Amino acid sequence: MDRRKFLKSAGLAAGAAAATTLATPAISQGRAKLTMVTSWPRGAAGVWDVVEHISETVNQMSDGTLEVDAKAAGELVGAFESFDAASSGQADAYHAADYYFISQSPAWALFTAIPFGMTAPEMMVWYYHRGGRELHHELGEIFNLRSFIAGNTGAQGGGWYRSPINSAEDFNGLKFRMPGLGGQTVSKLGASVQNVPGGEIYQALASGALDATEWIGPWSDEALGLHEVAKNYYPAGFHEPGAALSFAVNLEVFNSLSPAHQKIIEQASAESHQWLYSLYISNNGSALGRLVAGGVTTHTFSDEVWDAFGAGAAEVIEEARGDDMFAKIHDSAFAAMRDASAWISGSDGVYTTQRARVLGLL
Amino acid sequence: MDRRKFLKSAGLAAGAAAATTLATPAISQGRAKLTMVTSWPRGAAGVWDVVEHISETVNQMSDGTLEVDAKAAGELVGAFESFDAASSGQADAYHAADYYFISQSPAWALFTAIPFGMTAPEMMVWYYHRGGRELHHELGEIFNLRSFIAGNTGAQGGGWYRSPINSAEDFNGLKFRMPGLGGQTVSKLGASVQNVPGGEIYQALASGALDATEWIGPWSDEALGLHEVAKNYYPAGFHEPGAALSFAVNLEVFNSLSPAHQKIIEQASAESHQWLYSLYISNNGSALGRLVAGGVTTHTFSDEVWDAFGAGAAEVIEEARGDDMFAKIHDSAFAAMRDASAWISGSDGVYTTQRARVLGLL
Repeated sequence: MDRRKFLKSAGLAAGAAAATTLATPAISQGRAKLTMVTSWPRGAAGVWDVVEHISETVNQMSDGTLEVDAKAAGELVGAFESFDAASSGQADAYHAADYYFISQSPAWALFTAIPFGMTAPEMMVWYYHRGGRELHHELGEIFNLRSFIAGNTGAQGGGWYRSPINSAEDFNGLKFRMPGLGGQTVSKLGASVQNVPGGEIYQALASGALDATEWIGPWSDEALGLHEVAKNYYPAGFHEPGAALSFAVNLEVFNSLSPAHQKIIEQASAESHQWLYSLYISNNGSALGRLVAGGVTTHTFSDEVWDAFGAGAAEVIEEARGDDMFAKIHDSAFAAMRDASAWISGSDGVYTTQRARVLGLL
Repeated sequence: MDRRKFLKSAGLAAGAAAATTLATPAISQGRAKLTMVTSWPRGAAGVWDVVEHISETVNQMSDGTLEVDAKAAGELVGAFESFDAASSGQADAYHAADYYFISQSPAWALFTAIPFGMTAPEMMVWYYHRGGRELHHELGEIFNLRSFIAGNTGAQGGGWYRSPINSAEDFNGLKFRMPGLGGQTVSKLGASVQNVPGGEIYQALASGALDATEWIGPWSDEALGLHEVAKNYYPAGFHEPGAALSFAVNLEVFNSLSPAHQKIIEQASAESHQWLYSLYISNNGSALGRLVAGGVTTHTFSDEVWDAFGAGAAEVIEEARGDDMFAKIHDSAFAAMRDASAWISGSDGVYTTQRARVLGLL
């Protein structure tokens, strides 16, 4: 019996059970210090920046009464152990991409990104105004967590390839790094998918353990040096159209905080979504320019490849919907996406197309 | 000599001079209460909601030590007098759209929206990461204000017309409500432009004082009842592709606040940008559906009309650039927009086009 089935049948989180061993967070006289484990290498472009942005914002808004002590991947626990650490109380909180934890519940993918899912602005429509936040809390509580979306990378690139992708068949046998349901989708196309933490991708690609990889986008990828070992880059991808990150606090720890500290965590997380999304947009264009000047060739996938992604993703999502929680949350998210994308297409979409034409921007 | 020329020659803000009469804000023992005047009717869909959202967020994050007492247009001062009230110290702060105040400096338009300017996500790229926020502070200080962007309506609709617009010539002689540089642009097409506060638009349109108007978007416009008196609606417009709102605090009042309270105002404002933007997206689509079901006809402007908007806007912006501050801020904003739109077009743009095609969404 896997953990998910256990949780369903027991109606109780393993995390909640483990929480009896919870270390008391450092709280005294209205002051609190949260030890936050993360899935990120220290200093990683974007994802570590937002950890520092949140920590500073929380500290300043609380007049120093609430501190966040952020640990990089490997400093306290490994990149993908952050969930268990915060759920069990070994750490007070984590910052990560929730789709790293789909083995706990496939529904976690919906709070990062799913193939052909929401862009960052669409994600906020759902999260604030169409029930997404409440569903995030509901899922988190099963695992003894209070979860908040806290960052977004924007649309992630289609990845780095030693050889260009000329047809969907080129994915057959490809040793490829892609997490979440996106990775499951390219598995349907025959790829051999591995989930390698950010800090280990370069080595895996250089050694030949990987033939191809995605990480985030030109700016973060440039910092990892991926262009040194694969020269073909696809700026647009199907797999993470607006990858949200999460700040999750152990639920007992969260409940022990004052209402003001709880609200500060909620609002700092929400603000960081927009802050990081715009940071990636601001940096990706110039990074791509440097990469191309340095010998990288950019490509777009053909319609035939996009159709293959679409067919693979439909299978993967249908399978994931076998999980009741995934199906419930997916229904909510898809309805919000359909409404939001229709409005955006008819207003912003018409506008940006006309702007490009009238100003000769493109 | 108009006020702007006076400010330039004196090197001193009228607001700053008036600030010697500043009322002391209600501050004692670490507690503060800000009287905030606004340009909005009490309860107006969206724009009043965000005023309440900011007030609640500030109150909760500060554990009740910082209160915002929001006044609707006309309760303390009129809709367009909010700027002078906060600048002079008659009120502690305002919430409004800064382009209402282009008679003070045309550069204020750049912190709401200009024709063919930035969408809401592009605005945040500029504001956070390309110097926009610092320029907002610089402009605000001339008028004795600390200014923060605090809300965004998203792309505003092209407006409500008794008769459809079949060519650019149909704007000739049209009695039209549109503020800011958008209004100046349709003036170039011969329209008779009036800047009517939100609370007075319905009456002006019903009485024939206006032939046509824009307000915000389907959701807000439906609440004003504009569809009752004009049946032709254009969801996409050129004039306000992402209209930001501002929370501006009298500078002496702001400087008298604790660093934690200052940061809470900054972050609550920033978060509200994303919150309101997504609220409009969430509500506009369904509102448009109701309006169409109720007999409204939707249209898109022809390329010829968009080209006329483009030619008019180019003239208006060239004239505005005669002001040194406008030119400096416009250079900064335009460079950020060009970079951001190029990246978004090649990543999100390719993705959303493929998503619509693969999923058959549109």
